[in-house]
Amino acid sequence: MIMRRVAIVGVGMTEFGEHWELGYRELVAQAGVRAIEDAKLQGVKIDALYGGTMAAGKLIGQEHITALIADYMGLNPIPATRVEAACASGGVALRTGYMAVASGMHDVVVVGGAEKMTDVPTGEAAIALGGAGDQEWELFMGATFPALYALAARRHMYEYGTTREMLASVAVKNHANGAKNPYAHFRKEISLQAVLDSKMIADPLTIFDCSPISDGAAAVILMPLEKAKEHTDMPIEILASTQASDTLALHSRKSLTELMATKVAVRRALEATKMTPKDIDVCEVHDCFTIAEIMAIEDLGFFEKGKGGQATLDGETALNSKISINTSGGLKACGHPVGATGVKQAVEITWQLRGEAQNGRQVKGAEIGMTHNVGGSGATCVIHVMKRAD
Amino acid sequence: MIMRRVAIVGVGMTEFGEHWELGYRELVAQAGVRAIEDAKLQGVKIDALYGGTMAAGKLIGQEHITALIADYMGLNPIPATRVEAACASGGVALRTGYMAVASGMHDVVVVGGAEKMTDVPTGEAAIALGGAGDQEWELFMGATFPALYALAARRHMYEYGTTREMLASVAVKNHANGAKNPYAHFRKEISLQAVLDSKMIADPLTIFDCSPISDGAAAVILMPLEKAKEHTDMPIEILASTQASDTLALHSRKSLTELMATKVAVRRALEATKMTPKDIDVCEVHDCFTIAEIMAIEDLGFFEKGKGGQATLDGETALNSKISINTSGGLKACGHPVGATGVKQAVEITWQLRGEAQNGRQVKGAEIGMTHNVGGSGATCVIHVMKRAD
Repeated sequence: MIMRRVAIVGVGMTEFGEHWELGYRELVAQAGVRAIEDAKLQGVKIDALYGGTMAAGKLIGQEHITALIADYMGLNPIPATRVEAACASGGVALRTGYMAVASGMHDVVVVGGAEKMTDVPTGEAAIALGGAGDQEWELFMGATFPALYALAARRHMYEYGTTREMLASVAVKNHANGAKNPYAHFRKEISLQAVLDSKMIADPLTIFDCSPISDGAAAVILMPLEKAKEHTDMPIEILASTQASDTLALHSRKSLTELMATKVAVRRALEATKMTPKDIDVCEVHDCFTIAEIMAIEDLGFFEKGKGGQATLDGETALNSKISINTSGGLKACGHPVGATGVKQAVEITWQLRGEAQNGRQVKGAEIGMTHNVGGSGATCVIHVMKRAD
Repeated sequence: MIMRRVAIVGVGMTEFGEHWELGYRELVAQAGVRAIEDAKLQGVKIDALYGGTMAAGKLIGQEHITALIADYMGLNPIPATRVEAACASGGVALRTGYMAVASGMHDVVVVGGAEKMTDVPTGEAAIALGGAGDQEWELFMGATFPALYALAARRHMYEYGTTREMLASVAVKNHANGAKNPYAHFRKEISLQAVLDSKMIADPLTIFDCSPISDGAAAVILMPLEKAKEHTDMPIEILASTQASDTLALHSRKSLTELMATKVAVRRALEATKMTPKDIDVCEVHDCFTIAEIMAIEDLGFFEKGKGGQATLDGETALNSKISINTSGGLKACGHPVGATGVKQAVEITWQLRGEAQNGRQVKGAEIGMTHNVGGSGATCVIHVMKRAD
């Protein structure tokens, strides 16, 4: 039983994209300052900082990166801790900040997520990201992440009749949402045909089935719910924060077409909140590849296993349809600065629950939101359920 | 105010040293199984895993390392999260596990710390460790960690008359303790003259003033205090867990001869426990270099600033003297597998408070213990105060 209720009182993020002119420090500072301003925290003491980053050691030669941010932002001597679970680093950072507040250890906590990926060539970035899987058994044998998710896609097509068009329809839908998001890496719509005709990366995944390599940062401010009302009229309560693990290597799993970590984490989140998937109005899912979104909407219980592709092709996950999935554009179109993604998901859901999503991407009457952040090929999954606390 | 009291119910560690025959997974498993057996946890559900590791990405090409451990040890689907703050990674892992229990999120938590450092050449390891400082302003300019601590040592000698013999006496004392510790990397005594005559690394620090590059792992099991008695007659309560940050780069600090992060963290720990330094019977401090121990025993309040060198030379920090410092042998003689160190400190203090320290290194009547874990050249400090809860 959680000892103290926790709410988000402020959010901020940078545009995601290729920020040749900004370093890691500047990106995090930009997101952090926006969150602090959003929370009207000027003059309020911040008690601790948790940062999610996957591979700063390999990408920019810097470990101890969250202490560096406390230093750069003038927050010393507050505790500053980096948390990491590959592509779920942002999600575990949020969960750690949540525990810090729930435990009574800290009252005002900033949770940041960031990655600066374009300082190294793409091949080097791919190898750094390969460390999210089982290095000795997967990356060392040549299996980069597009290859691993391509195995899942092929198997999903074989078992459930999922088609290339269904995969492509995920990208089309997420680009349509991303076109409405001023923070998105890609802000243009694409056609189904464009995805099908684009360059093959790992059969059956083309380049438009893959999320990009992005720079970016996102931040949220947490407080005990009882104090949150002093800073905002619309605190967003975190109703559940759950996490589960699975094998790193795909070959150790019973199934290639579902993520056990997602299924366990979402079951615990729904039990804790006494909800069913039908209660969720808007959800950010981890679509590092188009097949990942199809598996996610099935594993989360929005659609039966095997039906996620058809549902997407039929528009059931589009904005203001049956369930609005990835209104931000997702990893696919909003971009995927690895450590930032899990925090960005919480930023987007906060905007949705406050009714502040811009440019026509607001989900009508959104009351309950969910984030789904996956590490590697599913060895970690973190789920957060959020609700406007009025 | 902390919501729920937390105790250590089991501890374990590997021997520290050069484990050519063991990988990261095997080292952590060995420490973890020993802690689980020590806690008599067979058949009890473990709820979560927190792992402290600094640079697995650079040292073994593997991120997502704590999920890998959950996988390798058959603990799936429990949440598995890596935390990092350079050489204080073990300390922040312990603090995160503490929050997980204190928050009510989890009841039985394993905290591990580990580093596998000998898989790369020493030069590569030194560059990986350089990421603990400010990469852009220190490492890039050629300042490795011996060089940074040599600056502190020179300044301490200039300001307070600290001598080479005083620095060397830290190594002599810690080797004397390490000689009694079956888990230590170096288990032999050394003479003052041997330290003075050894190879110069960064003037005034010789090779015997530096902690070694070690492989190793350590683990502790945490539970709510009220449940701890079911597993052990001697739960060790964590009375305080504090953390503070300072600038990464030395050149940004007002003083080279003290660590502000240590001073802030220990002040908060003593305030929280209503104690003074005199109440501490045994303390593991972060002696990555001999000068670091001298600064630590001053900053922690055991000795006046500038008097730590003379006190050490006079034997006041030896086993069963005024204050027993680094009974394990410290980083200097027990070894420094970076992420393991902060957890190993808690293992040693647990043994001391239980009266179980082996081979004549037991501190008589030890009731209150402290750990002091530093990241980089002092950008992070984590303090834990522990007491036998009878």
